[in-house]
Amino acid sequence: MTARYDFASDNTAPAAPEALEALIAANTGFTSGYGTDPVSARAADLVRELLDADAEVRFVASGTAANAVALAALCRPFEAVLAHEHAHICTDETGAPGFFGHGLGLVGLKGASGRIDPAALAGPLAAPDVSYRQSPAALSLTNATEYGTVYTAAELKALTGPVKARGYGVHLDGARLANAAAAGFDLKAIKDLGVDILVVGGTKAGMTPTEAVAIFDRAAARRFDARLKQAGQLPSKGRFYAAPFIGMLESGAFLRHAAHANAMARKLAALMPFPVVHPVEANGVFVEMDEDRLRALHKSGWFAYRFLDGSVRFMCSWATTEEAVEQLGETLKGLA
Amino acid sequence: MTARYDFASDNTAPAAPEALEALIAANTGFTSGYGTDPVSARAADLVRELLDADAEVRFVASGTAANAVALAALCRPFEAVLAHEHAHICTDETGAPGFFGHGLGLVGLKGASGRIDPAALAGPLAAPDVSYRQSPAALSLTNATEYGTVYTAAELKALTGPVKARGYGVHLDGARLANAAAAGFDLKAIKDLGVDILVVGGTKAGMTPTEAVAIFDRAAARRFDARLKQAGQLPSKGRFYAAPFIGMLESGAFLRHAAHANAMARKLAALMPFPVVHPVEANGVFVEMDEDRLRALHKSGWFAYRFLDGSVRFMCSWATTEEAVEQLGETLKGLA
Amino acid sequence: MTARYDFASDNTAPAAPEALEALIAANTGFTSGYGTDPVSARAADLVRELLDADAEVRFVASGTAANAVALAALCRPFEAVLAHEHAHICTDETGAPGFFGHGLGLVGLKGASGRIDPAALAGPLAAPDVSYRQSPAALSLTNATEYGTVYTAAELKALTGPVKARGYGVHLDGARLANAAAAGFDLKAIKDLGVDILVVGGTKAGMTPTEAVAIFDRAAARRFDARLKQAGQLPSKGRFYAAPFIGMLESGAFLRHAAHANAMARKLAALMPFPVVHPVEANGVFVEMDEDRLRALHKSGWFAYRFLDGSVRFMCSWATTEEAVEQLGETLKGLA
Amino acid sequence: MTARYDFASDNTAPAAPEALEALIAANTGFTSGYGTDPVSARAADLVRELLDADAEVRFVASGTAANAVALAALCRPFEAVLAHEHAHICTDETGAPGFFGHGLGLVGLKGASGRIDPAALAGPLAAPDVSYRQSPAALSLTNATEYGTVYTAAELKALTGPVKARGYGVHLDGARLANAAAAGFDLKAIKDLGVDILVVGGTKAGMTPTEAVAIFDRAAARRFDARLKQAGQLPSKGRFYAAPFIGMLESGAFLRHAAHANAMARKLAALMPFPVVHPVEANGVFVEMDEDRLRALHKSGWFAYRFLDGSVRFMCSWATTEEAVEQLGETLKGLA
Repeated sequence: MTARYDFASDNTAPAAPEALEALIAANTGFTSGYGTDPVSARAADLVRELLDADAEVRFVASGTAANAVALAALCRPFEAVLAHEHAHICTDETGAPGFFGHGLGLVGLKGASGRIDPAALAGPLAAPDVSYRQSPAALSLTNATEYGTVYTAAELKALTGPVKARGYGVHLDGARLANAAAAGFDLKAIKDLGVDILVVGGTKAGMTPTEAVAIFDRAAARRFDARLKQAGQLPSKGRFYAAPFIGMLESGAFLRHAAHANAMARKLAALMPFPVVHPVEANGVFVEMDEDRLRALHKSGWFAYRFLDGSVRFMCSWATTEEAVEQLGETLKGLA
Repeated sequence: MTARYDFASDNTAPAAPEALEALIAANTGFTSGYGTDPVSARAADLVRELLDADAEVRFVASGTAANAVALAALCRPFEAVLAHEHAHICTDETGAPGFFGHGLGLVGLKGASGRIDPAALAGPLAAPDVSYRQSPAALSLTNATEYGTVYTAAELKALTGPVKARGYGVHLDGARLANAAAAGFDLKAIKDLGVDILVVGGTKAGMTPTEAVAIFDRAAARRFDARLKQAGQLPSKGRFYAAPFIGMLESGAFLRHAAHANAMARKLAALMPFPVVHPVEANGVFVEMDEDRLRALHKSGWFAYRFLDGSVRFMCSWATTEEAVEQLGETLKGLA
Repeated sequence: MTARYDFASDNTAPAAPEALEALIAANTGFTSGYGTDPVSARAADLVRELLDADAEVRFVASGTAANAVALAALCRPFEAVLAHEHAHICTDETGAPGFFGHGLGLVGLKGASGRIDPAALAGPLAAPDVSYRQSPAALSLTNATEYGTVYTAAELKALTGPVKARGYGVHLDGARLANAAAAGFDLKAIKDLGVDILVVGGTKAGMTPTEAVAIFDRAAARRFDARLKQAGQLPSKGRFYAAPFIGMLESGAFLRHAAHANAMARKLAALMPFPVVHPVEANGVFVEMDEDRLRALHKSGWFAYRFLDGSVRFMCSWATTEEAVEQLGETLKGLA
Repeated sequence: MTARYDFASDNTAPAAPEALEALIAANTGFTSGYGTDPVSARAADLVRELLDADAEVRFVASGTAANAVALAALCRPFEAVLAHEHAHICTDETGAPGFFGHGLGLVGLKGASGRIDPAALAGPLAAPDVSYRQSPAALSLTNATEYGTVYTAAELKALTGPVKARGYGVHLDGARLANAAAAGFDLKAIKDLGVDILVVGGTKAGMTPTEAVAIFDRAAARRFDARLKQAGQLPSKGRFYAAPFIGMLESGAFLRHAAHANAMARKLAALMPFPVVHPVEANGVFVEMDEDRLRALHKSGWFAYRFLDGSVRFMCSWATTEEAVEQLGETLKGLA
């Protein structure tokens, strides 16, 4: 029996050929460092094109750091970030926002299937500033969400509107932005949503480790390279973080691979003998499964994790094959 | 005229074939994340073998972060790190140690050509603890040094001895450890020097971005993955940071390329028409050159930077060619 | 109508005569600074005597800072402190633990009336260390609790036992330790509970602003003055923070005043026409009161606040008079 | 032989009667907390009157914290504060600015007798922003300076002008502002100097521990109470930090006592048998004295400290008596 990580996460996959080939292509000659090279410039142009927006773009090594640096730019230590209670920044990043943001607070908001309920946002926004509490200064959104659902631009606007009206910042964690886009979310709409800093996920989209940070708010962009350098996120050989984006964006693989991952999730959902508990809109399938069955699944070699809401998560990626989906489906059927 | 970054730094070079091929070879199949994969395990074994030491080994994206995380592990905010006044952590990392270490202090020590003068160390070590000052808790060393010199194991021992005797920690920044080794520094001696945390540079040694962190002090290693994750330095697709080390260590290229870089520096020094101001023991050549001539050099297309001691630095790397050295030598001769 | 803050908090009261007289008595002659003076030494002796323990004792200006500094000494940024979900450190200190502790996490535990349920503690303690989560490193307790209840030494032992068994730290927030002691909690038992750092509240006990920090764990005490100085909590004129403790401890007023405050709370509870929702064991009375009635109370001049559990809190202090209790009782009767 | 701390510092003195009496007077009745009380309001009015400025005013417990909180408000972690190399924030506060400011940098500037040389300021201001260095975001000034000299308003303007022209912030550490004012510095000129945050020293001016923070920049004042609370500097019983300012400002004692301290310093300088190395413009006398003589002085009971520039410092305060000056003069004569 071989351990099967195919569905454990979307970062257990290798890099897609388009990403790797671009990385190899960039590996030629001497070039200037710290993101000032032509490869980084070209990749930044492509990200701007993807977003149809005049944003500053940087490429960093880590999604956790990208999110945390963004939040630190938008929120002071005695203030708080509003986010879905199960957002990655709240539950899976070892308190990185508080570390990079020097103790900034996180306020968890409720909402079905990873989408923040606008009503849940209203309370914290309306609460009066008091000295003994970290009042909100920013909203953090995630699209696609942690539960594989996808906000529409209109749904995001309903959340960012009241936040921007108060002068607060907005961060969008797009670790799975490609999956959201492949599910119909309009990337060119982001620039009109009041997002100050967007993280465009490369790693989960099928690249070698890299994330693009798009800074829409020019004031927040001031001295951003120094901010990144201090945070250990201004790579000297920047081309290796930029190149995969070139490969994936020029070829269209960024969206094409995400569409494939989404399709694999839908296929898995269709085969799934356990109750699916969240709408399958992107690349994840969340099911109700008891502990005995999960253990049995693990024993059969397939890794999948119980998630924060008690469901068991299966993630698809650019590399998920139909065969693997069918094999897993068979195994699950045997357990159900 | 093409801009020439050949000698601007050792991180302007591309990745060596051995590193890139190993990265490509690792790009296969699904694997577990966050450094728990077999590629990371294999690379860690190779680093332990290189050092002949039973250390914990992690692979991270950034040298700045690796150093800063290490110092934060060894020094509390109200304490200080002793380091050469021109050490990278003091002058080129935008205060990253203070950011990761929550305000920890840096105390700059004097010493010729980047080597700390043992006499300069004695004062701060002997100073009484007082409440209004950040007393030392760790020593940070760099080998090869910022000025291209190389400590012997005995020289390092003379510095670490009194530090360990006081129960303080020792960090070794090995961004150019390969060059030090190629110059005769015995890597297997490190384990006897009292080093608690060592950063083995991959990037400047000719890899795609990656640094190995070797933790000799098991107490400091506790929960180190959480420490890294919070700091944005626990990559999900860890294999891409580990693989280059496999390629470079298995093949011997790690030392071979460094030996080449060192040889190129010696060759450049031999051709150099300007006074060389530091011993050329590793891959850097530092010369006395006035501002007019540096400007003229830049005009001719070659990048080189004025350094902290006022000298102008030329760095060689695995990718530096004899031709480039000769071309640069010619150009410099024309300016002298 | 005069605004009445008598029951708004126990820090709305002035300082007790014993505290103020000692402060005045200490205001004589020149003395050494930063807590090295004889007044501070004498007060520290008295605190040790109170606790029957050989602890390091410091006097600081702020309870928030005292707690936060203590937690930062016991917990690293990538770790977490376990505390009652409504503990002062979790809800009323503007994220100070995360600020002083560089992003350390707080994990809120359930438990009736402010006391942590031992069963709620078991889960986080048993959870495996994982890199993406801040694993616990310390437990923070509060006695008397935020809801005016008092742990017995045995109850605390039941909580600290499993925590110490794992090698984790224990912090005890004693902002109302005097009230706990007056309610029967044995202060001399603290030294056997595994508490590493204790904050003995002065301010709420009827002093001018001052808190005593008792450090039982000598390792944590190393360089504590530098820790305090960096945190802005090593006062140059230390005698003014120490003297009130002398006045209150030498005279017995520390416990006597607390006993009075507790008695006033019991008297208020006896007169209370609204349902009392937590046992009245110390100096607070928490009642069920709707918003209309609370507003009417405020209109009548009396301040009282709705608390985290939805109840309305009335606090008594050393300065609370029987007359005030009766007046408030009358007013409340009129509203009920 | 009694230990004599009369000249060790200006914080070895007790509180002046005007300060203590006001504190006692404020100790009456119940009042609202956290600086919202009428005593705090009255004291804030008096500080505004002193400065003839419409600033936000808060009262905090610690000068170190006041400075550090101010700098954290003006400078982000990846930026730096420019200050005299021997400023208190650089040398005597255990790295508090870096702790409160999450690693913000301090750049030490040269200048005779504690005054920053405008030429020394020009370089850092003109240096280009680079990612690997903490570029300046604020200037910190001290008046009276660490070496007992006093800037005129015009001298300060010459320093703040180019700083404000770049949009950077200005902090003024007025731990000894009373002494500067008594020496002729016009406090009402501060509002025109571009100072964003001023700390008005209470402690060294003869109060019980308290410092006033005057925030001229209204943008920096936003949520300042939350900032202070998180930093452990928003005292619940705020009146005790405000009252001494009422006593000292209403009576004129603030300036009168400072004038006395300054006069005592002049008297001591006149009697001084050792070379005085800095102009005696405020309350300190700095002299050249070898180690043997300093030791002999300590043996005779008088405490004085060797300072950063190698001189020995004698500080006078409101409580320094003519007799003490004469006794010390005699003792010194015997040693010279």
